[in-house]
Amino acid sequence: MFFNPTITALSSGMASLLAPIPLLATVDPENSPIVLSGVLLSLVVIYLASKLGAEAAMKFNLPPVLGELVAGVIVGISALHLIVFPEGGMSVANSGIMTVLQSINSMSPAAVTSVFESQSEIISVLAELGVIILLFEIGLESDLRQLKEVGIQATFVACVGVAVPFAAGTAGLMIIFHTAAIPAIFAGAALTATSIGITSKVLSELGRLKSKEGQIIVGAAVIDDVLGIIVLAVVASLAKTGEIDVVNVIYLIVGATAFLLGSILLGGIFNKTFATVVDKLKTRGNIVMPAFIFAFFMAFIGNAIHLEAILGAFAAGLVLDESDARNELDELIKPVADLFVPIFFVTVGARADLGVLNPTVPENRAGLLIAVFLVVVAIFGKLVTGWAVFGQPGINRLAIGVGMIPRGEVGLVFAGIGSASGALDKPLEVSIIIMVILTTFVAPPFLRIAFGDTVEPPATGEPSSDKTAISG
Amino acid sequence: MFFNPTITALSSGMASLLAPIPLLATVDPENSPIVLSGVLLSLVVIYLASKLGAEAAMKFNLPPVLGELVAGVIVGISALHLIVFPEGGMSVANSGIMTVLQSINSMSPAAVTSVFESQSEIISVLAELGVIILLFEIGLESDLRQLKEVGIQATFVACVGVAVPFAAGTAGLMIIFHTAAIPAIFAGAALTATSIGITSKVLSELGRLKSKEGQIIVGAAVIDDVLGIIVLAVVASLAKTGEIDVVNVIYLIVGATAFLLGSILLGGIFNKTFATVVDKLKTRGNIVMPAFIFAFFMAFIGNAIHLEAILGAFAAGLVLDESDARNELDELIKPVADLFVPIFFVTVGARADLGVLNPTVPENRAGLLIAVFLVVVAIFGKLVTGWAVFGQPGINRLAIGVGMIPRGEVGLVFAGIGSASGALDKPLEVSIIIMVILTTFVAPPFLRIAFGDTVEPPATGEPSSDKTAISG
Repeated sequence: MFFNPTITALSSGMASLLAPIPLLATVDPENSPIVLSGVLLSLVVIYLASKLGAEAAMKFNLPPVLGELVAGVIVGISALHLIVFPEGGMSVANSGIMTVLQSINSMSPAAVTSVFESQSEIISVLAELGVIILLFEIGLESDLRQLKEVGIQATFVACVGVAVPFAAGTAGLMIIFHTAAIPAIFAGAALTATSIGITSKVLSELGRLKSKEGQIIVGAAVIDDVLGIIVLAVVASLAKTGEIDVVNVIYLIVGATAFLLGSILLGGIFNKTFATVVDKLKTRGNIVMPAFIFAFFMAFIGNAIHLEAILGAFAAGLVLDESDARNELDELIKPVADLFVPIFFVTVGARADLGVLNPTVPENRAGLLIAVFLVVVAIFGKLVTGWAVFGQPGINRLAIGVGMIPRGEVGLVFAGIGSASGALDKPLEVSIIIMVILTTFVAPPFLRIAFGDTVEPPATGEPSSDKTAISG
Repeated sequence: MFFNPTITALSSGMASLLAPIPLLATVDPENSPIVLSGVLLSLVVIYLASKLGAEAAMKFNLPPVLGELVAGVIVGISALHLIVFPEGGMSVANSGIMTVLQSINSMSPAAVTSVFESQSEIISVLAELGVIILLFEIGLESDLRQLKEVGIQATFVACVGVAVPFAAGTAGLMIIFHTAAIPAIFAGAALTATSIGITSKVLSELGRLKSKEGQIIVGAAVIDDVLGIIVLAVVASLAKTGEIDVVNVIYLIVGATAFLLGSILLGGIFNKTFATVVDKLKTRGNIVMPAFIFAFFMAFIGNAIHLEAILGAFAAGLVLDESDARNELDELIKPVADLFVPIFFVTVGARADLGVLNPTVPENRAGLLIAVFLVVVAIFGKLVTGWAVFGQPGINRLAIGVGMIPRGEVGLVFAGIGSASGALDKPLEVSIIIMVILTTFVAPPFLRIAFGDTVEPPATGEPSSDKTAISG
């Protein structure tokens, strides 16, 4: 809470003289145990919700990840208000966790706000680490050779899946709803990027990740993500300046391609280094540590070159895929993923405000109509991608199309940036959120139906039901 | 970065109109990827340091945890300035991580400060989760029945280990150095609490955790911690008001005792519930999730009743110790601990400012003399505790005394709160920090010598060298 960066240069002793200024929780030693309390309690709620949700979904023969999302909605902004975030316009008074913390600690109003923001930010970063670890695990489970085989198919699927919803969405909004060009383009862009996290988790739970369809979907979702980031950069600069920064667009396209191909090429070399390092280490964590150093470093690079952290983590997993220490790593990463990944899914659910679906509120109606249109475009615009696959007789085109539907976190990023930059008005923002929610919730059961999967998922005491499903 | 809590009630759209006010990274969507970059890069540095340090220590036949601490010192405030925290009076310009982030992102000075504080706070909380998970693991590895057997011995050791350094430190400072009563009492209090984290980790690495000596040390360190918290509360209220809040002191004593005994008694019931729940769950994470829900909940309770989170986590581990699903849990918790615990040890090292040891700086000299005195009291005040053990012929009294020496994180908390409350002047604060650093660094090799442990630690490709050592 410094108004001037030079204040940080003062020693903490001097800073404490500035008592009337609300200090950040890191600075005030009295608040830091309360922030920890908030994080611990949030994690307990998130874990309880995710486990109850996953088990309930399993009972109804639905993918566990859908249960985690729904459980997130229940504990989040839409219902119980236990896990809420300041970005949603939520005040401290709306946070169930903060109410509990306030009842057991005496805090000044400034301290309450500071603790709320700190703990929300920490949970957000843990969720981001969750999706990074998920993509690392998905990378480990993906087969690089098979992914190379489906590379051209995946590129085709991705391009169709970006072009069709973007064109149909933008044109439809301008023609049917008379939306101005820039917001229409922004909304169209929000329709493009597939949520690789949700789709690949469902594929993994169905035991279809290593099928040809699964690999095309994952490959296309990765390329999609890259294309989505490029589209976002273009649209955001368009919204800000009214013109397109061509240099930046070229940088993003070249950068993303070079990053993915480069890491796969370098991977062959690192693979051997990794195995050698693991063999030489004698202390605890000799496998997980080098693996996570690599994964987090690649995620950092992905983030640093203004692509995405998850792209780097996925590439890291893909590269280690053929490593010798991999089988052991596969087992070791599971409990880590089990503890981090649910934070991501529950918070995605918790952030989704189903209140915007309420048709009795007049302001929601305009958004609802546009939302219906966007949902239709979002679903059909991706369904057609299945028919973009060529030279693969007998492939399940429906499953590929359905697998590309969920927008998840990427769509929410679009809505957030669009609303922050002022490009999107409230009805359009609401519609995009509704589109993201519905596509995310609808895809998992549809994907199961598309695969004709009526098999009972393996009921096992073992923690790794998806692993069993893959080998089975 | 809100000056007024009501501002949080505004929607993010409205908040963005208040652009001149520096917003927290959570609120500003442009900063949040930079915070993530900072966290990822910090974790990479921490992991690299911890692994290099641990392996180097192993080479010199020293406990790996000592290597992690030294590696932390090297990457921290004393040398490379890669991992630094705002509490140490460090500005953004001193942070290596922030310099890297600034070179790849364009940020306003306010954004830089905000990102630095957010990222430091997140790493701090991850370190706190690290020590919580460490104590949970230590609890799992401890044998409740054996701990009950040594309960009275441990209580004796703990009481002597609190009384002797406190009395000798306070009296010595007042008589020899003519320190005023309140700062002398504060410094004396800082000499009391043993760092259970460091000691138990070293015991575990030596394969001595389950020995009678090991159990007495761990038990005494837990009681010590509780006594230390009580002493801190008493001293802090004394420093603040000039008198002692008797009600609070009684509350802390009763609360801590009731909490530990209560959780052990209730544990018998929960144990069966835990096994039943684990059996019923069919989705991934069926063991780790319930275990961590329990551990984090207990840690939260420990924190919420103004004791310590680590006390709750330790109790949770102790209780699950006799559970049926325990053997599996033992294996599953390892990679999680391997990723979290090093964050704690490296950051403890990173926060320790060895610059205060430099005798060429005149201001350090007064502190150095007092420091020598405090270190002597700290070491001998705990060494004598070994001779407080009765009715245990043939027990290694030296090992018990040495095991109680390290002050670690608890001592740093005393120094931090003492300096923030104004009770400690600079020389005394510096002396306490030196005492903490030396006792922490000195104990691991001394402990190894005290146990007469010259056996080569098991060189294994398996990640769990301490586990092997225990069974061996």
